[in-house]
Amino acid sequence: MSRPTVAVVGLGQMGGSFAAALTRRRLARVVGVTRRAETAARARKMGILADAGTDLSAVSDADVVVLATPVRTLLRQIPEVAPLVRSGSILTDVGSTKTDVVEALRRAKPAATVVAGHPMAGNERAGLDGVDENLFEQRPWVLIGNRRRAALLERLVTAVGARPLWMKNPEEHDLKVARVSHIPYLLAYALMGTPEDSIRVCGNSFRDATRVAKSDPDMVLDFLLTNPRPIRRSAGELKKRLDDLLRAIARGEATTLRKTLERARERRSRI
Amino acid sequence: MSRPTVAVVGLGQMGGSFAAALTRRRLARVVGVTRRAETAARARKMGILADAGTDLSAVSDADVVVLATPVRTLLRQIPEVAPLVRSGSILTDVGSTKTDVVEALRRAKPAATVVAGHPMAGNERAGLDGVDENLFEQRPWVLIGNRRRAALLERLVTAVGARPLWMKNPEEHDLKVARVSHIPYLLAYALMGTPEDSIRVCGNSFRDATRVAKSDPDMVLDFLLTNPRPIRRSAGELKKRLDDLLRAIARGEATTLRKTLERARERRSRI
Repeated sequence: MSRPTVAVVGLGQMGGSFAAALTRRRLARVVGVTRRAETAARARKMGILADAGTDLSAVSDADVVVLATPVRTLLRQIPEVAPLVRSGSILTDVGSTKTDVVEALRRAKPAATVVAGHPMAGNERAGLDGVDENLFEQRPWVLIGNRRRAALLERLVTAVGARPLWMKNPEEHDLKVARVSHIPYLLAYALMGTPEDSIRVCGNSFRDATRVAKSDPDMVLDFLLTNPRPIRRSAGELKKRLDDLLRAIARGEATTLRKTLERARERRSRI
Repeated sequence: MSRPTVAVVGLGQMGGSFAAALTRRRLARVVGVTRRAETAARARKMGILADAGTDLSAVSDADVVVLATPVRTLLRQIPEVAPLVRSGSILTDVGSTKTDVVEALRRAKPAATVVAGHPMAGNERAGLDGVDENLFEQRPWVLIGNRRRAALLERLVTAVGARPLWMKNPEEHDLKVARVSHIPYLLAYALMGTPEDSIRVCGNSFRDATRVAKSDPDMVLDFLLTNPRPIRRSAGELKKRLDDLLRAIARGEATTLRKTLERARERRSRI
Protein backbone atom coordinates (compact mmCIF):
# COMPACT_ATOMS: atom_id res chain seq x y z
CA MET A 1 0.00 0.00 0.00
CA SER A 2 1.43 3.39 -1.00
CA ARG A 3 1.73 6.14 1.55
CA PRO A 4 -1.46 8.17 2.00
CA THR A 5 -1.61 11.91 1.40
CA VAL A 6 -2.60 13.94 4.47
CA ALA A 7 -3.60 17.59 4.16
CA VAL A 8 -3.20 19.65 7.33
CA VAL A 9 -5.08 22.95 7.36
CA GLY A 10 -3.55 25.31 9.94
CA LEU A 11 0.12 25.05 10.90
CA GLY A 12 0.13 25.89 14.60
CA GLN A 13 1.46 23.73 17.42
CA MET A 14 -1.10 20.93 16.78
CA GLY A 15 -1.15 20.88 12.98
CA GLY A 16 2.60 21.40 12.79
CA SER A 17 3.32 18.65 15.31
CA PHE A 18 1.02 16.15 13.55
CA ALA A 19 2.65 17.02 10.20
CA ALA A 20 6.10 16.56 11.76
CA ALA A 21 5.13 13.29 13.45
CA LEU A 22 3.79 11.83 10.15
CA THR A 23 6.65 13.12 8.00
CA ARG A 24 9.55 12.09 10.27
CA ARG A 25 8.08 8.60 10.67
CA ARG A 26 7.46 8.40 6.86
CA LEU A 27 3.81 7.54 7.52
CA ALA A 28 2.29 9.88 4.96
CA ARG A 29 2.96 12.55 2.36
CA VAL A 30 1.89 15.70 4.21
CA VAL A 31 0.64 18.85 2.51
CA GLY A 32 0.11 21.94 4.62
CA VAL A 33 -2.34 24.77 4.04
CA THR A 34 -2.09 28.00 5.97
CA ARG A 35 -3.36 31.55 5.73
CA ARG A 36 0.02 33.27 5.69
CA ALA A 37 2.63 32.52 2.99
CA GLU A 38 5.46 33.13 5.52
CA THR A 39 4.12 30.37 7.78
CA ALA A 40 4.00 27.96 4.82
CA ALA A 41 7.59 28.88 3.89
CA ARG A 42 8.79 28.39 7.47
CA ALA A 43 7.08 24.98 7.72
CA ARG A 44 8.75 23.88 4.45
CA LYS A 45 12.14 25.00 5.78
CA MET A 46 11.57 23.04 9.00
CA GLY A 47 11.17 19.88 6.90
CA ILE A 48 8.00 18.85 8.69
CA LEU A 49 5.97 18.34 5.47
CA ALA A 50 6.32 17.62 1.74
CA ASP A 51 4.74 20.87 0.59
CA ALA A 52 2.85 23.85 2.00
CA GLY A 53 0.91 26.76 0.56
CA THR A 54 -2.04 29.04 1.04
CA ASP A 55 -4.47 27.45 -1.42
CA LEU A 56 -7.29 25.50 0.28
CA SER A 57 -8.00 23.49 -2.89
CA ALA A 58 -4.97 21.32 -2.00
CA VAL A 59 -7.30 19.38 0.33
CA SER A 60 -9.08 17.81 -2.66
CA ASP A 61 -6.12 15.51 -3.38
CA ALA A 62 -5.87 14.17 0.19
CA ASP A 63 -6.89 10.83 1.68
CA VAL A 64 -7.15 12.48 5.10
CA VAL A 65 -7.87 16.16 5.71
CA VAL A 66 -7.01 17.44 9.19
CA LEU A 67 -8.47 20.80 10.18
CA ALA A 68 -6.04 22.20 12.75
CA THR A 69 -7.09 25.80 13.21
CA PRO A 70 -8.50 27.17 16.51
CA VAL A 71 -12.15 26.21 17.10
CA ARG A 72 -13.54 29.66 16.41
CA THR A 73 -11.67 29.82 13.07
CA LEU A 74 -12.68 26.23 12.33
CA LEU A 75 -16.38 27.07 12.66
CA ARG A 76 -16.04 29.72 9.93
CA GLN A 77 -13.80 27.49 7.80
CA ILE A 78 -15.86 24.28 7.73
CA PRO A 79 -18.52 25.44 5.20
CA GLU A 80 -15.71 26.49 2.86
CA VAL A 81 -13.46 23.40 3.20
CA ALA A 82 -15.98 20.55 3.56
CA PRO A 83 -17.23 20.65 -0.09
CA LEU A 84 -13.63 20.42 -1.35
CA VAL A 85 -12.88 17.08 0.36
CA ARG A 86 -13.51 14.18 -1.97
CA SER A 87 -15.81 11.22 -1.32
CA GLY A 88 -13.90 8.26 0.16
CA SER A 89 -11.55 10.54 2.08
CA ILE A 90 -11.66 11.23 5.81
CA LEU A 91 -12.31 14.73 7.15
CA THR A 92 -11.21 15.27 10.73
CA ASP A 93 -10.17 18.08 13.08
CA VAL A 94 -8.12 18.58 16.24
CA GLY A 95 -10.25 21.26 17.90
CA SER A 96 -10.25 21.34 21.71
CA THR A 97 -14.06 21.44 22.03
CA LYS A 98 -16.40 19.33 19.95
CA THR A 99 -20.14 20.10 20.16
CA ASP A 100 -20.12 23.19 17.90
CA VAL A 101 -17.57 21.62 15.53
CA VAL A 102 -19.59 18.42 15.04
CA GLU A 103 -22.72 20.49 14.45
CA ALA A 104 -20.92 22.62 11.83
CA LEU A 105 -19.55 19.48 10.10
CA ARG A 106 -23.04 17.95 10.05
CA ARG A 107 -24.55 21.09 8.53
CA ALA A 108 -21.82 21.20 5.83
CA LYS A 109 -22.91 17.71 4.54
CA PRO A 110 -19.47 16.71 3.18
CA ALA A 111 -19.10 13.75 0.78
CA ALA A 112 -16.16 12.53 2.92
CA THR A 113 -16.34 10.43 6.10
CA VAL A 114 -16.41 12.80 9.06
CA VAL A 115 -14.55 11.94 12.28
CA ALA A 116 -14.15 14.68 14.88
CA GLY A 117 -10.94 14.48 16.92
CA HIS A 118 -9.05 15.96 19.84
CA PRO A 119 -5.50 14.98 20.75
CA MET A 120 -5.15 15.60 24.52
CA ALA A 121 -1.66 17.00 24.17
CA GLY A 122 0.09 20.33 24.06
CA ASN A 123 2.88 22.48 25.41
CA GLU A 124 3.17 26.13 26.53
CA ARG A 125 4.62 27.37 23.22
CA ALA A 126 2.40 28.86 20.50
CA GLY A 127 2.46 28.26 16.71
CA LEU A 128 5.32 26.56 14.87
CA ASP A 129 7.59 27.29 17.89
CA GLY A 130 5.61 24.59 19.70
CA VAL A 131 6.12 21.89 17.06
CA ASP A 132 7.19 18.59 18.62
CA GLU A 133 7.07 15.36 16.60
CA ASN A 134 6.70 13.42 19.90
CA LEU A 135 3.90 15.62 21.27
CA PHE A 136 1.31 12.82 21.02
CA GLU A 137 3.34 9.98 22.60
CA GLN A 138 1.20 8.13 25.15
CA ARG A 139 -1.48 10.86 25.04
CA PRO A 140 -5.19 10.07 24.50
CA TRP A 141 -6.53 11.17 21.09
CA VAL A 142 -10.31 11.45 21.30
CA LEU A 143 -12.21 10.38 18.18
CA ILE A 144 -15.95 10.72 17.53
CA GLY A 145 -17.60 9.21 14.43
CA ASN A 146 -17.93 5.98 12.47
CA ARG A 147 -14.99 3.84 13.60
CA ARG A 148 -15.34 1.23 10.83
CA ARG A 149 -14.87 3.88 8.15
CA ALA A 150 -11.98 5.58 9.95
CA ALA A 151 -9.40 2.75 9.93
CA LEU A 152 -6.78 4.85 8.10
CA LEU A 153 -7.08 7.74 10.55
CA GLU A 154 -6.95 5.43 13.59
CA ARG A 155 -3.84 3.77 12.14
CA LEU A 156 -2.07 7.14 11.70
CA VAL A 157 -3.09 8.35 15.17
CA THR A 158 -1.70 5.15 16.70
CA ALA A 159 1.45 5.34 14.58
CA VAL A 160 2.37 8.79 15.93
CA GLY A 161 2.25 7.32 19.45
CA ALA A 162 -1.20 8.42 20.62
CA ARG A 163 -3.88 6.22 22.21
CA PRO A 164 -7.16 6.49 20.21
CA LEU A 165 -10.08 7.02 22.59
CA TRP A 166 -13.47 6.68 20.92
CA MET A 167 -16.33 8.63 22.48
CA LYS A 168 -20.05 8.32 21.83
CA ASN A 169 -20.80 11.96 21.18
CA PRO A 170 -19.34 15.47 21.35
CA GLU A 171 -21.30 16.28 24.53
CA GLU A 172 -19.49 13.48 26.41
CA HIS A 173 -16.15 14.89 25.26
CA ASP A 174 -16.94 18.50 26.15
CA LEU A 175 -18.16 17.69 29.67
CA LYS A 176 -15.15 15.49 30.43
CA VAL A 177 -12.58 18.02 29.21
CA ALA A 178 -14.41 20.80 31.05
CA ARG A 179 -14.01 18.80 34.28
CA VAL A 180 -10.37 17.77 33.90
CA SER A 181 -8.91 20.59 31.84
CA HIS A 182 -11.00 23.75 31.55
CA ILE A 183 -11.75 23.85 35.30
CA PRO A 184 -8.06 23.50 36.32
CA TYR A 185 -7.29 26.38 33.92
CA LEU A 186 -10.03 28.54 35.46
CA LEU A 187 -8.81 27.75 38.99
CA ALA A 188 -5.28 28.74 37.96
CA TYR A 189 -6.56 32.10 36.66
CA ALA A 190 -8.65 32.64 39.79
CA LEU A 191 -5.58 31.87 41.96
CA MET A 192 -3.48 34.33 39.95
CA GLY A 193 -5.80 37.09 41.20
CA THR A 194 -4.39 36.54 44.74
CA PRO A 195 -2.93 39.77 46.23
CA GLU A 196 0.75 40.32 45.39
CA ASP A 197 2.00 40.38 49.01
CA SER A 198 0.53 36.91 49.55
CA ILE A 199 1.92 35.48 46.30
CA ARG A 200 5.34 36.54 47.59
CA VAL A 201 5.26 33.73 50.20
CA CYS A 202 3.96 31.05 47.83
CA GLY A 203 5.45 27.58 47.66
CA ASN A 204 5.11 24.58 45.37
CA SER A 205 1.37 24.03 45.90
CA PHE A 206 0.65 27.46 44.39
CA ARG A 207 3.27 27.07 41.66
CA ASP A 208 1.85 23.72 40.56
CA ALA A 209 -1.77 24.90 40.63
CA THR A 210 -1.02 28.00 38.51
CA ARG A 211 1.44 26.55 35.99
CA VAL A 212 -1.13 26.54 33.13
CA ALA A 213 -1.63 30.30 33.55
CA LYS A 214 1.60 30.57 31.49
CA SER A 215 -0.27 29.19 28.43
CA ASP A 216 -1.00 31.11 25.24
CA PRO A 217 -4.14 33.22 26.04
CA ASP A 218 -5.52 32.78 22.49
CA MET A 219 -5.48 29.00 22.80
CA VAL A 220 -7.20 29.14 26.19
CA LEU A 221 -9.82 31.69 25.09
CA ASP A 222 -10.64 29.36 22.22
CA PHE A 223 -11.73 26.47 24.44
CA LEU A 224 -13.27 28.59 27.20
CA LEU A 225 -15.50 30.56 24.82
CA THR A 226 -16.65 27.51 22.84
CA ASN A 227 -17.60 25.40 25.87
CA PRO A 228 -19.71 27.60 28.16
CA ARG A 229 -22.41 25.13 29.28
CA PRO A 230 -20.18 22.16 30.24
CA ILE A 231 -17.85 24.62 32.03
CA ARG A 232 -20.78 26.07 33.98
CA ARG A 233 -21.93 22.58 34.99
CA SER A 234 -18.43 21.40 35.97
CA ALA A 235 -17.79 24.57 37.97
CA GLY A 236 -21.02 23.94 39.87
CA GLU A 237 -19.87 20.40 40.71
CA LEU A 238 -16.46 21.68 41.82
CA LYS A 239 -17.90 24.46 43.97
CA LYS A 240 -20.22 22.00 45.70
CA ARG A 241 -17.26 19.76 46.62
CA LEU A 242 -15.26 22.80 47.77
CA ASP A 243 -18.18 23.95 49.95
CA ASP A 244 -18.42 20.46 51.51
CA LEU A 245 -14.73 20.70 52.45
CA LEU A 246 -15.14 24.23 53.84
CA ARG A 247 -18.13 23.17 55.92
CA ALA A 248 -16.18 20.24 57.42
CA ILE A 249 -13.31 22.62 58.29
CA ALA A 250 -15.63 25.19 59.87
CA ARG A 251 -17.20 22.45 61.99
CA GLY A 252 -13.85 20.84 62.86
CA GLU A 253 -15.02 17.48 61.45
CA ALA A 254 -11.63 15.72 61.52
CA THR A 255 -12.98 12.25 60.72
CA THR A 256 -14.97 13.37 57.65
CA LEU A 257 -12.04 15.42 56.37
CA ARG A 258 -9.54 12.62 56.91
CA LYS A 259 -11.69 10.25 54.83
CA THR A 260 -11.84 12.75 51.96
CA LEU A 261 -8.09 13.40 52.11
CA GLU A 262 -7.22 9.69 52.23
CA ARG A 263 -9.57 8.86 49.35
CA ALA A 264 -8.12 11.73 47.27
CA ARG A 265 -4.56 10.57 47.99
CA GLU A 266 -5.40 7.03 46.94
CA ARG A 267 -7.12 8.15 43.70
CA ARG A 268 -4.29 10.59 42.87
CA SER A 269 -1.72 7.80 43.27
CA ARG A 270 -3.44 5.86 40.47
CA ILE A 271 -3.23 8.64 37.84
CA MET B 1 32.01 32.06 69.96
CA SER B 2 31.32 28.42 70.83
CA ARG B 3 28.62 26.52 68.96
CA PRO B 4 25.14 27.03 70.43
CA THR B 5 23.01 24.16 71.70
CA VAL B 6 19.70 23.73 69.85
CA ALA B 7 16.96 21.48 71.25
CA VAL B 8 14.47 20.20 68.70
CA VAL B 9 11.22 18.85 70.15
CA GLY B 10 9.54 16.56 67.61
CA LEU B 11 11.56 14.61 65.04
CA GLY B 12 9.33 14.60 61.98
CA GLN B 13 10.18 15.90 58.52
CA MET B 14 10.59 19.52 59.75
CA GLY B 15 12.36 18.93 63.07
CA GLY B 16 14.53 16.18 61.60
CA SER B 17 15.49 18.27 58.57
CA PHE B 18 16.39 21.30 60.70
CA ALA B 19 18.46 19.07 63.02
CA ALA B 20 20.20 17.55 59.99
CA ALA B 21 20.81 20.95 58.37
CA LEU B 22 22.40 22.33 61.59
CA THR B 23 24.43 19.20 62.36
CA ARG B 24 25.82 18.57 58.86
CA ARG B 25 26.87 22.25 58.56
CA ARG B 26 28.39 22.15 62.12
CA LEU B 27 26.29 25.18 63.08
CA ALA B 28 25.09 23.88 66.44
CA ARG B 29 25.08 21.00 68.87
CA VAL B 30 21.59 19.54 68.34
CA VAL B 31 19.66 17.62 70.97
CA GLY B 32 16.42 15.94 69.93
CA VAL B 33 13.40 15.20 72.10
CA THR B 34 10.67 12.90 70.88
CA ARG B 35 7.78 10.94 72.33
CA ARG B 36 8.89 7.50 71.15
CA ALA B 37 12.27 6.01 72.11
CA GLU B 38 12.49 4.21 68.73
CA THR B 39 12.29 7.54 66.88
CA ALA B 40 15.08 8.95 69.07
CA ALA B 41 17.23 5.87 68.38
CA ARG B 42 16.62 6.11 64.64
CA ALA B 43 17.52 9.82 64.59
CA ARG B 44 20.77 9.08 66.45
CA LYS B 45 21.62 6.35 63.95
CA MET B 46 20.95 8.74 61.05
CA GLY B 47 23.63 11.05 62.47
CA ILE B 48 21.42 14.11 62.18
CA LEU B 49 21.97 15.21 65.83
CA ALA B 50 24.37 14.91 68.79
CA ASP B 51 21.91 13.21 71.10
CA ALA B 52 18.22 12.33 71.30
CA GLY B 53 15.87 11.06 73.98
CA THR B 54 12.35 11.24 75.32
CA ASP B 55 12.95 13.56 78.31
CA LEU B 56 11.55 17.07 77.77
CA SER B 57 13.83 18.53 80.49
CA ALA B 58 16.67 18.45 77.91
CA VAL B 59 15.30 21.77 76.62
CA SER B 60 16.53 23.59 79.76
CA ASP B 61 20.17 23.39 78.58
CA ALA B 62 19.50 24.84 75.13
CA ASP B 63 20.21 28.30 73.70
CA VAL B 64 17.43 27.77 71.15
CA VAL B 65 14.42 25.49 71.64
CA VAL B 66 12.54 24.57 68.45
CA LEU B 67 9.07 23.06 68.87
CA ALA B 68 8.55 20.93 65.77
CA THR B 69 5.43 18.88 66.50
CA PRO B 70 2.17 19.29 64.52
CA VAL B 71 0.16 22.39 65.53
CA ARG B 72 -2.52 20.46 67.41
CA THR B 73 0.14 18.63 69.47
CA LEU B 74 2.04 21.87 69.95
CA LEU B 75 -0.97 23.59 71.51
CA ARG B 76 -1.11 20.90 74.21
CA GLN B 77 2.69 20.86 74.62
CA ILE B 78 3.39 24.58 75.05
CA PRO B 79 2.17 24.91 78.70
CA GLU B 80 4.41 21.97 79.61
CA VAL B 81 7.58 23.02 77.72
CA ALA B 82 7.57 26.81 78.05
CA PRO B 83 8.41 26.90 81.81
CA LEU B 84 11.44 24.63 81.20
CA VAL B 85 13.16 27.02 78.76
CA ARG B 86 15.64 29.27 80.55
CA SER B 87 15.71 33.07 80.48
CA GLY B 88 18.06 34.39 77.79
CA SER B 89 17.25 31.48 75.45
CA ILE B 90 15.00 31.65 72.39
CA LEU B 91 11.81 29.58 72.20
CA THR B 92 10.50 29.10 68.67
CA ASP B 93 8.32 26.70 66.65
CA VAL B 94 7.84 25.57 63.04
CA GLY B 95 4.05 25.15 63.07
CA SER B 96 2.23 25.72 59.79
CA THR B 97 -0.42 28.05 61.28
CA LYS B 98 0.40 30.77 63.80
CA THR B 99 -2.55 32.52 65.49
CA ASP B 100 -3.38 29.77 68.00
CA VAL B 101 0.30 28.98 68.60
CA VAL B 102 1.23 32.59 69.37
CA GLU B 103 -1.78 32.86 71.71
CA ALA B 104 -0.72 29.68 73.54
CA LEU B 105 2.88 30.93 73.83
CA ARG B 106 1.65 34.27 75.22
CA ARG B 107 -0.52 32.55 77.82
CA ALA B 108 2.40 30.32 78.93
CA LYS B 109 4.43 33.45 79.90
CA PRO B 110 7.88 31.86 79.31
CA ALA B 111 11.08 33.50 80.66
CA ALA B 112 12.70 32.96 77.25
CA THR B 113 12.39 35.21 74.17
CA VAL B 114 9.49 33.94 72.08
CA VAL B 115 9.70 33.97 68.27
CA ALA B 116 7.05 32.08 66.31
CA GLY B 117 8.27 30.58 63.04
CA HIS B 118 7.18 28.76 59.88
CA PRO B 119 9.62 27.47 57.28
CA MET B 120 7.72 27.45 53.96
CA ALA B 121 9.22 24.15 52.89
CA GLY B 122 8.32 20.50 52.77
CA ASN B 123 8.13 17.36 50.70
CA GLU B 124 5.55 14.59 50.24
CA ARG B 125 7.23 12.17 52.69
CA ALA B 126 6.20 11.95 56.33
CA GLY B 127 8.35 11.70 59.49
CA LEU B 128 12.07 10.90 59.45
CA ASP B 129 11.64 9.46 55.92
CA GLY B 130 11.22 13.06 54.78
CA VAL B 131 14.45 14.35 56.35
CA ASP B 132 16.44 16.48 53.91
CA GLU B 133 19.28 18.69 55.12
CA ASN B 134 18.71 20.97 52.08
CA LEU B 135 14.94 21.27 52.59
CA PHE B 136 15.13 24.95 53.50
CA GLU B 137 17.43 26.15 50.68
CA GLN B 138 16.02 29.33 49.12
CA ARG B 139 12.69 28.88 50.96
CA PRO B 140 11.09 31.69 52.99
CA TRP B 141 11.15 31.09 56.78
CA VAL B 142 8.48 33.25 58.38
CA LEU B 143 9.40 34.73 61.79
CA ILE B 144 7.11 36.67 64.14
CA GLY B 145 8.45 38.32 67.32
CA ASN B 146 11.14 40.69 68.57
CA ARG B 147 13.79 40.68 65.84
CA ARG B 148 16.48 42.44 67.93
CA ARG B 149 16.41 39.68 70.53
CA ALA B 150 16.36 36.87 67.93
CA ALA B 151 19.73 37.44 66.25
CA LEU B 152 20.97 33.90 66.99
CA LEU B 153 17.83 32.27 65.53
CA GLU B 154 17.94 34.49 62.43
CA ARG B 155 21.60 33.58 61.94
CA LEU B 156 20.85 29.83 62.10
CA VAL B 157 17.85 30.10 59.78
CA THR B 158 19.98 31.98 57.23
CA ALA B 159 22.86 29.52 57.65
CA VAL B 160 20.68 26.52 56.68
CA GLY B 161 19.87 28.33 53.42
CA ALA B 162 16.44 29.83 54.20
CA ARG B 163 15.37 33.45 53.67
CA PRO B 164 14.06 34.91 56.98
CA LEU B 165 10.77 36.73 56.37
CA TRP B 166 9.60 38.81 59.32
CA MET B 167 5.86 39.35 59.64
CA LYS B 168 4.00 41.79 61.88
CA ASN B 169 1.58 39.35 63.47
CA PRO B 170 0.25 35.77 63.25
CA GLU B 171 -2.96 36.91 61.57
CA GLU B 172 -0.97 38.26 58.60
CA HIS B 173 0.80 34.90 58.28
CA ASP B 174 -2.32 32.79 58.53
CA LEU B 175 -4.24 34.77 55.90
CA LYS B 176 -1.33 34.74 53.45
CA VAL B 177 -0.70 30.99 53.75
CA ALA B 178 -4.43 30.31 53.51
CA ARG B 179 -4.45 32.15 50.17
CA VAL B 180 -1.32 30.62 48.62
CA SER B 181 -1.19 27.20 50.24
CA HIS B 182 -4.33 26.01 52.01
CA ILE B 183 -6.61 27.06 49.12
CA PRO B 184 -4.53 25.23 46.47
CA TYR B 185 -4.70 22.12 48.70
CA LEU B 186 -8.48 22.42 49.01
CA LEU B 187 -8.86 22.90 45.25
CA ALA B 188 -6.77 19.78 44.68
CA TYR B 189 -9.05 17.76 47.00
CA ALA B 190 -12.17 19.20 45.32
CA LEU B 191 -10.74 18.27 41.90
CA MET B 192 -10.00 14.72 43.09
CA GLY B 193 -13.77 14.27 43.55
CA THR B 194 -14.16 14.43 39.74
CA PRO B 195 -15.93 11.33 38.32
CA GLU B 196 -13.53 8.50 37.43
CA ASP B 197 -14.47 8.32 33.72
CA SER B 198 -13.49 11.98 33.33
CA ILE B 199 -10.22 11.65 35.25
CA ARG B 200 -9.31 8.95 32.74
CA VAL B 201 -8.85 11.62 30.02
CA CYS B 202 -6.90 14.06 32.21
CA GLY B 203 -3.73 15.75 31.06
CA ASN B 204 -1.03 17.88 32.67
CA SER B 205 -3.32 20.68 33.86
CA PHE B 206 -5.19 18.23 36.12
CA ARG B 207 -2.01 16.44 37.21
CA ASP B 208 -0.34 19.70 38.23
CA ALA B 209 -3.40 21.04 40.04
CA THR B 210 -3.85 17.83 42.08
CA ARG B 211 -0.22 16.97 42.88
CA VAL B 212 -0.51 18.07 46.55
CA ALA B 213 -3.34 15.57 47.08
CA LYS B 214 -0.50 13.02 47.42
CA SER B 215 0.58 14.69 50.70
CA ASP B 216 0.41 13.12 54.16
CA PRO B 217 -3.24 13.58 55.29
CA ASP B 218 -2.19 14.15 58.93
CA MET B 219 0.00 17.07 57.97
CA VAL B 220 -2.74 18.62 55.84
CA LEU B 221 -5.45 18.09 58.48
CA ASP B 222 -3.21 19.89 60.94
CA PHE B 223 -3.15 23.16 59.02
CA LEU B 224 -6.72 22.96 57.71
CA LEU B 225 -8.25 22.42 61.15
CA THR B 226 -6.18 25.12 62.86
CA ASN B 227 -6.89 27.86 60.30
CA PRO B 228 -10.66 27.88 59.68
CA ARG B 229 -11.35 31.62 59.53
CA PRO B 230 -8.54 32.67 57.14
CA ILE B 231 -9.43 29.67 54.94
CA ARG B 232 -13.08 30.72 54.85
CA ARG B 233 -12.13 34.29 53.90
CA SER B 234 -9.62 33.18 51.21
CA ALA B 235 -12.12 30.71 49.76
CA GLY B 236 -14.66 33.53 49.49
CA GLU B 237 -12.14 35.67 47.59
CA LEU B 238 -11.28 32.76 45.28
CA LYS B 239 -14.92 31.91 44.56
CA LYS B 240 -15.66 35.55 43.71
CA ARG B 241 -12.84 35.59 41.15
CA LEU B 242 -13.98 32.23 39.75
CA ASP B 243 -17.55 33.54 39.41
CA ASP B 244 -16.28 36.63 37.56
CA LEU B 245 -14.53 34.33 35.08
CA LEU B 246 -17.61 32.13 34.68
CA ARG B 247 -19.82 35.17 34.07
CA ALA B 248 -17.45 36.46 31.36
CA ILE B 249 -17.51 33.02 29.68
CA ALA B 250 -21.31 32.77 29.85
CA ARG B 251 -21.59 36.22 28.25
CA GLY B 252 -18.86 35.53 25.66
CA GLU B 253 -16.88 38.58 26.83
CA ALA B 254 -13.68 37.84 24.89
CA THR B 255 -12.00 41.21 25.59
CA THR B 256 -12.54 41.04 29.38
CA LEU B 257 -11.35 37.44 29.50
CA ARG B 258 -8.29 38.13 27.38
CA LYS B 259 -7.23 40.91 29.76
CA THR B 260 -7.54 38.58 32.78
CA LEU B 261 -5.63 35.78 31.01
CA GLU B 262 -2.84 38.09 29.86
CA ARG B 263 -2.48 39.68 33.31
CA ALA B 264 -2.37 36.22 34.95
CA ARG B 265 0.26 35.05 32.47
CA GLU B 266 2.40 38.12 33.14
CA ARG B 267 2.12 37.73 36.94
CA ARG B 268 2.82 33.98 36.76
CA SER B 269 5.97 34.59 34.72
CA ARG B 270 7.37 36.66 37.62
CA ILE B 271 7.02 33.92 40.28
